[in-house]
Amino acid sequence: MSVALVGAGPGDPGLVTVKGLEYVRAADVLIYDRLVSPELVGESDGVAIDRDRLTQDEVNSLLVEHGRHSFVVRLKGGDPFLFGRGGEEALALADAGIPFEIVPGVSSLASVPGSALIPVTHRGVASAVTAFAAHDVEALDAAALARVPGTLVAFMGGANARRLAERLIEHGKPASTPAAVIARGTTEDEEVVVTPLGALEDATATPALVVIGEVVAVREALAVRRSAA
Amino acid sequence: MSVALVGAGPGDPGLVTVKGLEYVRAADVLIYDRLVSPELVGESDGVAIDRDRLTQDEVNSLLVEHGRHSFVVRLKGGDPFLFGRGGEEALALADAGIPFEIVPGVSSLASVPGSALIPVTHRGVASAVTAFAAHDVEALDAAALARVPGTLVAFMGGANARRLAERLIEHGKPASTPAAVIARGTTEDEEVVVTPLGALEDATATPALVVIGEVVAVREALAVRRSAA
Repeated sequence: MSVALVGAGPGDPGLVTVKGLEYVRAADVLIYDRLVSPELVGESDGVAIDRDRLTQDEVNSLLVEHGRHSFVVRLKGGDPFLFGRGGEEALALADAGIPFEIVPGVSSLASVPGSALIPVTHRGVASAVTAFAAHDVEALDAAALARVPGTLVAFMGGANARRLAERLIEHGKPASTPAAVIARGTTEDEEVVVTPLGALEDATATPALVVIGEVVAVREALAVRRSAA
Repeated sequence: MSVALVGAGPGDPGLVTVKGLEYVRAADVLIYDRLVSPELVGESDGVAIDRDRLTQDEVNSLLVEHGRHSFVVRLKGGDPFLFGRGGEEALALADAGIPFEIVPGVSSLASVPGSALIPVTHRGVASAVTAFAAHDVEALDAAALARVPGTLVAFMGGANARRLAERLIEHGKPASTPAAVIARGTTEDEEVVVTPLGALEDATATPALVVIGEVVAVREALAVRRSAA
C-alpha cells in the first residue's frame, strides 16, 4: 500500500484541502500531530494514532510498518515540507520502498498573519518574506536575518520572542520595527499582540508565530478604516 | 453584503481548501485570476468575471461595487497575502466600509517545490526559507539574498532565472548551489529542471518557480532511493 504526507493547515479545520480531507476519510491508519484539530481527526474511521510522545525515528518506523499493508495518512500541522519534517519521513519511506505522496497544506506562514489582517507581502512595503525556525535563538544568523529585506516570520519562536528581538536589534534591525505575536492563529482562541520590536515580550500561549516588519502596520490601517467605516 | 478574498492554491484544483470551495459555490459574483484552474471556476453558479485584462484599481472598484449588494468571492492563485495583492484589495474594501474576510490558500512557496520532491526546509540542511518577487531582478538586494541562510524561492523569476543566478553568484552564492526551475507545479503539465545555480537557464513555460539551495539535493536522494527500492 502507500503513505500520504498530508498538511492539515494552520488550525481552523475548514482550512484543510479538499484532497487532504478526502485522504483522511479514506485512511486505514491516521498518524496525527497534537496540533491538528480534533474535528479533522474525527473525520477518519481508520485507526488513529497520536504521535505526540513518539520520537521522529519512531514515527518513521510506524509509517514504514503500516505503509506496507495499509493506506496510511500522516496528518501534520501546516504544510509537510515547511517546518513539517516531511522530508525525513519521505526519505524513510523511499528507503523502505513504500510508495508515498505529498499533499501540501496551508502553512501558518501567511495564513496566521493573514488571520490577524497582516499581509506578509504588500506592494511598496515588502516584496520578500523570510520564515525561520526560532526554537534556538542563539544559533540563528541574526546578522543575516536583520539585513534581509522584507518580512520576518519566526516559527517556534513565541517562547523566545524577547531574546529574538534583542539579537535582531543588536545586528541593526530598528527597535521601532512593527512586530506581532499571534498565538493559536486561525482558531477561535486566536490572540494577537502588536508592539514595536524593542518591546516584544515572550508569548505565553502556544503555538505562536512572531511577525516582524512594516507589513504589521497594514493591520492597523485596516483596523482603523474598518472601524471608521 | 461582503467579499471573501480566497486562495485557490497552486494549480491542482484539489488543493483548494474546504472553506474556499464552499465559498466559491456560494458566491453571487466570482472574480478570478487567469491562473486559477477552470475546474474551480466551474464550481460557481454565480456571475464569473475574469480579471485578466483589468488593472488592480479596476479590480478594487469591481470588488467594492459588487460587494455592496452581493456575496463576492475574489479567487486568487496561491494565497491572497503572499504575493497575492490581497492587502491592497482589503484596504480598498475597508475604505469603502464593505465587510471582508480572508480565506488563506496553499501557496506555491512550499507546495510547488514539494510536488517536485523538494522540501523547502529539511533538518540539518535548511531551517529557513526566503521567498521573494523576482520580476525585477536588478532591483533585488542580491547581497542580502546571497547571504541569508536557508532556501531561496523566487516567485515570478522564471523568465529571469539566468540573470538572478548571475547576481547571486556575484554576491558570493556558490555557483555549485543546487537549483531547480519548476513550471506549472502541481498540475499535470509540471516540468522540473534541476541544475547547479551557475548553469541556471530562463524558464520558457509559465508560471515558474525558482528554488535555490541544498534542499534541492534531497529530491535527488528521494528519486535515487525510490528507483533503487
